[in-house]
Amino acid sequence: MKVWKRIEPTVVNKIGYRTIVTKTFKLPDDSTKGFQTIDQEDTHFSGVVALTEDNQVIVAQQFRPGPEKIMTEIPGGKVDGGEDYQAAAVRELAEETGYNPGKIISIGQIYKSAYSNGIHHYYFATNCQRVVSGQQLDDSEFIDVKLISPKEFIANALKGQMTDIGAVLLAYERLVNLS
Amino acid sequence: MKVWKRIEPTVVNKIGYRTIVTKTFKLPDDSTKGFQTIDQEDTHFSGVVALTEDNQVIVAQQFRPGPEKIMTEIPGGKVDGGEDYQAAAVRELAEETGYNPGKIISIGQIYKSAYSNGIHHYYFATNCQRVVSGQQLDDSEFIDVKLISPKEFIANALKGQMTDIGAVLLAYERLVNLS
Repeated sequence: MKVWKRIEPTVVNKIGYRTIVTKTFKLPDDSTKGFQTIDQEDTHFSGVVALTEDNQVIVAQQFRPGPEKIMTEIPGGKVDGGEDYQAAAVRELAEETGYNPGKIISIGQIYKSAYSNGIHHYYFATNCQRVVSGQQLDDSEFIDVKLISPKEFIANALKGQMTDIGAVLLAYERLVNLS
Repeated sequence: MKVWKRIEPTVVNKIGYRTIVTKTFKLPDDSTKGFQTIDQEDTHFSGVVALTEDNQVIVAQQFRPGPEKIMTEIPGGKVDGGEDYQAAAVRELAEETGYNPGKIISIGQIYKSAYSNGIHHYYFATNCQRVVSGQQLDDSEFIDVKLISPKEFIANALKGQMTDIGAVLLAYERLVNLS
């Protein structure tokens, strides 16, 4: 299996906050083809599977515009330019749920999709404590914070009630050992 | 947590084979906001964690235009209009790898992303047999078929060498019990 060679032209289309990049590649049979990918300049996202002192998972219930449903998600979001990935996870946890981690460790990175340059960085946080100031949500964020058991968290993910599935896979053995 | 109310306008932009839909919602604070989602009319994808008679996982190594890397993926792809989801998984397995399943079962459905209406349907196939005709690849598909142990398959996914992570989560307990 050979790496495809990226060639010109590259065409960038911006629709709202989204960027579609048409990348042209020379394929292994020497033909050329353009592929549309959902790329972003700042392509990193951080998310965290976060547990309270009594090992309840802190989840963010929110309406999601893609599925057009309320999903039960892990706290997370886009890494700000120049921000440390773990710092971004800690910031998103605090902003979306009002919790600070006791201990936090990296559990890995995963590509978002075959058609995006986006990378998800996942963390596992234990002994999280509620901070006095509470949530600090962005204008269009409306999030209900719930505490659920690791067992229920895994069951939610398996039932398709979550979009950030990679985090559950990376945290799986840790979560099962807590149950 | 309330479901957001979808209101007009809806704006559809098509860039190559990709459709960006700007959906407008009335938010819980009565403000309105547009969100760009990567929606498709035919929004279903099927994928399969497929095992040979001696319980090796059949994977498809291929270059992916988003990560711009060779990834080790499960066989799968877009469901054709009107096609049964399981039939699509069986078809993609045959086309991409040249294997037919012995037994195949559904292991669940997962939303692709918070910003897409896409749904992934996952299957688990056992006792897969190689067919005489072999792979039947599309014009821009170049796939090396590999057989790897369930342990290596899970390790690959955890190391970020796969994009279709939901399948590994849904198949996890079955895979671990085979190892």
